Amino acid sequence: MEFVKITSAQNEAIKHVIKLRDRRPREKEQLTVLEGYRELTRAREYGMELVECFFSPSHFLGENEYPLLETLALEGVRVVEVAPHLLEKMAYRERPEGLIAIAKMKRHTLADLPVVENGLYLVAEAVEKPGNLGSILRSADAAGVDGLIICNKCTDLYNPNVIRASTGALFSVPLAEAENEEALAWLREHGIRTLAATPHTDTIYTDVDMTQAVAIVVGTEQTGLTELWMKHSDLPVRIPMLGKIDSLNVATATTILLYEAARQRNWK
Amino acid sequence: MEFVKITSAQNEAIKHVIKLRDRRPREKEQLTVLEGYRELTRAREYGMELVECFFSPSHFLGENEYPLLETLALEGVRVVEVAPHLLEKMAYRERPEGLIAIAKMKRHTLADLPVVENGLYLVAEAVEKPGNLGSILRSADAAGVDGLIICNKCTDLYNPNVIRASTGALFSVPLAEAENEEALAWLREHGIRTLAATPHTDTIYTDVDMTQAVAIVVGTEQTGLTELWMKHSDLPVRIPMLGKIDSLNVATATTILLYEAARQRNWK
Repeated sequence: MEFVKITSAQNEAIKHVIKLRDRRPREKEQLTVLEGYRELTRAREYGMELVECFFSPSHFLGENEYPLLETLALEGVRVVEVAPHLLEKMAYRERPEGLIAIAKMKRHTLADLPVVENGLYLVAEAVEKPGNLGSILRSADAAGVDGLIICNKCTDLYNPNVIRASTGALFSVPLAEAENEEALAWLREHGIRTLAATPHTDTIYTDVDMTQAVAIVVGTEQTGLTELWMKHSDLPVRIPMLGKIDSLNVATATTILLYEAARQRNWK
Repeated sequence: MEFVKITSAQNEAIKHVIKLRDRRPREKEQLTVLEGYRELTRAREYGMELVECFFSPSHFLGENEYPLLETLALEGVRVVEVAPHLLEKMAYRERPEGLIAIAKMKRHTLADLPVVENGLYLVAEAVEKPGNLGSILRSADAAGVDGLIICNKCTDLYNPNVIRASTGALFSVPLAEAENEEALAWLREHGIRTLAATPHTDTIYTDVDMTQAVAIVVGTEQTGLTELWMKHSDLPVRIPMLGKIDSLNVATATTILLYEAARQRNWK
């Protein structure tokens, strides 16, 4: 198969990719950028719509890139070869892997979330760092979470660092973005009990039954959960801190709670 | 109390702080840089020796900085005021908090590790990212680890990003740096059983007794544990992955294992 080739850095398509590094143009155009074989294949596998794909064979790491490009071209994605130095310019990552795609962002609403019997849900309020949000997505996938609700978001989901840190879980985990009040109403409507992670309780998380429909609610590292969740959650739970520093990263704390739920559910 | 004041950017002390951002000068001089009130107080609390401390009051966040500076001066630390723009130049962080100190690096050997009855130990092999190493330190502190052995290190412990991500746990957790073989010999000598985290086993980590002396051994995200640990560890254990992506961040995976040990030990 023959692909179009671009060699001039002035090309609009290349400028477009670079522009999409910033949140505002991403949100305006509802487009984001994916990089590398793994990210592209996972995004495609879980239903992201790719619009354009740029490649530079000299950066390829393996043998799978050409078959992927041919599949994309057959599906109607505009596939364009670029000179190596241009791909490096377009790439967000330090070591580009020769594949960069523009993809349509998805909107994630509560209506899209599956309502699963005895489901395990996670509510993350105001996570600040893209790396932490990515790591939470990855753990949510690994622990078999049925839905993740992002409340009062500080970081946009399609930030390249979230996509990368999630290692594809951004595409596989059922997601919703919502205001706190909407999220709480949705959980109540579906009879999902809320467990609020907080240091201000004596109830240890392992002493709580998580085998029924439950949502684990986590807040920011600095200030914890806002009053709404502290006041209206069904049960506060704490993670014991046995050391001298008394602090856990928000993503690791979330994972501890999710894996306790998974353990209680016998890994099903 | 009156402190010396520097206003010229050419001052050697300022150049020195900037130079210590790089690993080579740090290791040669066995000095590192600390930033901010929390980092300085925790480092001091856990026995780090501060050599010089630079401050710029216009960046202070609270009221505690001056009393700390007076204590440091009385202890023989050279305390120097710098102009705000110089402190910004010296600072590694984006939002400097007005306090920067040069401290002596500690050497951490196996001989320094406490041998605790039924102790909980962690062996981390070749952790690559400073943020992950910092996060592992933080979790090791929170889970009450008696000793952390860093094997075949890729990241130096006194990298500013490790210090920061550890939120002070770098100073509070008993540490050793060692080669794999030495670490294994030390663990055997003290009758500490080794649990190797790996996907290549059917044994789930929650099915293993961790209440006796035990060391949890974790490898890199990309390639896992090296052959030495896979071959000579007493028991391989795996963390079930229930999702579609099948991958956890190395720091979160480590935390899951540590908190299972802490749970089995009734948080003691």
